[in-house]
Amino acid sequence: MRFEVTILGSSSATPIYNRNPTSQVLNINERLYLVDCGEGTQQQMLRFDVRASRIDHIFISHLHGDHYLGLVGLLSSLHLNGRKKTLKLFGPPQLLEIIDLQFKYSETVLQYQIDFIPTNPLAAETILVNEDVSVETIPLNHRISCTGFLFREKKRLRKLYKEKLERLAVPVEHFTALKKGADYVDLKGRVYKNDELTSDSDNPRSFAYCSDTMFDERYFEQIKGADMLYHEATFLHAMLDRANDTHHTTALQAAQIANITGAKKLLIGHFSARYKTLDELLEEAQSEFPNTALAIEGKTFFI
Amino acid sequence: MRFEVTILGSSSATPIYNRNPTSQVLNINERLYLVDCGEGTQQQMLRFDVRASRIDHIFISHLHGDHYLGLVGLLSSLHLNGRKKTLKLFGPPQLLEIIDLQFKYSETVLQYQIDFIPTNPLAAETILVNEDVSVETIPLNHRISCTGFLFREKKRLRKLYKEKLERLAVPVEHFTALKKGADYVDLKGRVYKNDELTSDSDNPRSFAYCSDTMFDERYFEQIKGADMLYHEATFLHAMLDRANDTHHTTALQAAQIANITGAKKLLIGHFSARYKTLDELLEEAQSEFPNTALAIEGKTFFI
Repeated sequence: MRFEVTILGSSSATPIYNRNPTSQVLNINERLYLVDCGEGTQQQMLRFDVRASRIDHIFISHLHGDHYLGLVGLLSSLHLNGRKKTLKLFGPPQLLEIIDLQFKYSETVLQYQIDFIPTNPLAAETILVNEDVSVETIPLNHRISCTGFLFREKKRLRKLYKEKLERLAVPVEHFTALKKGADYVDLKGRVYKNDELTSDSDNPRSFAYCSDTMFDERYFEQIKGADMLYHEATFLHAMLDRANDTHHTTALQAAQIANITGAKKLLIGHFSARYKTLDELLEEAQSEFPNTALAIEGKTFFI
Repeated sequence: MRFEVTILGSSSATPIYNRNPTSQVLNINERLYLVDCGEGTQQQMLRFDVRASRIDHIFISHLHGDHYLGLVGLLSSLHLNGRKKTLKLFGPPQLLEIIDLQFKYSETVLQYQIDFIPTNPLAAETILVNEDVSVETIPLNHRISCTGFLFREKKRLRKLYKEKLERLAVPVEHFTALKKGADYVDLKGRVYKNDELTSDSDNPRSFAYCSDTMFDERYFEQIKGADMLYHEATFLHAMLDRANDTHHTTALQAAQIANITGAKKLLIGHFSARYKTLDELLEEAQSEFPNTALAIEGKTFFI
């Protein structure tokens, strides 16, 4: 099953040429999930061939502009381009008020429905479950209420030993039950235990999205063992005081968090505009956690 | 005196790669005036070396997203970049509510003051006068309340005939009075009429900004004789019905308006995303009004 993330924006609040504010799009089994939507996200989608009409779920972490100012424009474009399908939107409760006010004054009546699911910044909650994935909020520690999002692939059905089933001439109509773990009894009454005929599916993968936050142990347990951890790394560690003041993380801290939580891979992003190049941020993180990559615009990472 | 406009965005509501929603910046005697501020305007400024910190006046025509969704991000960046100077903001009364709500939820307290001057969509009003320019609103005819803006250079002082003044040994302290139109009396009591010693300054130039609107004679008188008329031209004339339905203008109509009002030059913009190339729009307008140019991103036009 496809499970990948494409970076649409990697910068923090003040703009810098060629880096856009935060946004990422996940492709999970050919469904697109947008996570944060900074100003210019629509243009980034056009640039990287991400079809906005394929997005059915949008997640907004918090109400700093660099994480949501592209949303009203996107919702409006979907409307103008004829969307009819309901869109699920997850974010802080006040987000709906901001959207409604702007559509009221532009006299926009959307042709499609938005199902708005307010997030709770105080407790981890499962906010979405479908056949492919479950999504939990991650309460983070930022200046204003902020949640990350933990995407966990659903456990897949067991895998059939096709050759063995052929040899035993097991009828096809038994396959679904076998995939779900049932034993098989043949016409002569002989019982085959399920694990003789199937193997366990791969472990479900997970992607943890943590932006914006300062280093805070309280969310570490929840993101344990993520196949991919995206963590903000706004500053170099030399600016730790500034990171603490503004409730952000340094590149070194992001790498420490990847180590502590046993992440398999770390992606860092949300870079301060003061860093014209990103090599130092990457080197600092890799010194602590070698399997780190930069969340560079347009790049797709397989989870 | 410098009087020029740089195009930052030329597209209408739905996004298209490589065209940004509407925004223009005027440089009038080294002061910058921003007119409309679609999503991504900050990035466009970075791209075209327009220093946001030099902008002291922002004008918003109406509350459709493609004309103002870049504003909150810009105001926020000015704050983060340490602006202290007051900023004058002109726009529909409801704009302030939209800004305030977003800053409330992001817990942003600006370090600088915004002087907000609400525009009146029903009558042409002078909303700004300074030593360089006066600005009037132009009531337009769009689906929601919308005003254009008419920038008129202030009449300059009279120009001195320097050589003649030297020959007559007119003391320097008389020059200001001469520039303002006074006659000069020399020590022997001889009177020199002002027009013997000075000439009239050049005619003040004007720039009329008309977006978004349908063809409507009511604003034609006000924009008469503009040195440069920027007029929206969302559609080709083959789509006149659609233009009327959505209260927009066709390229042919924009050119007719330039003719009727005696504009010296016409700039067209606010192009529908359906036009991947703009040649046909330009040709259509030029067939009626040859001195037409496309309002292409990054291009500067001298008024």
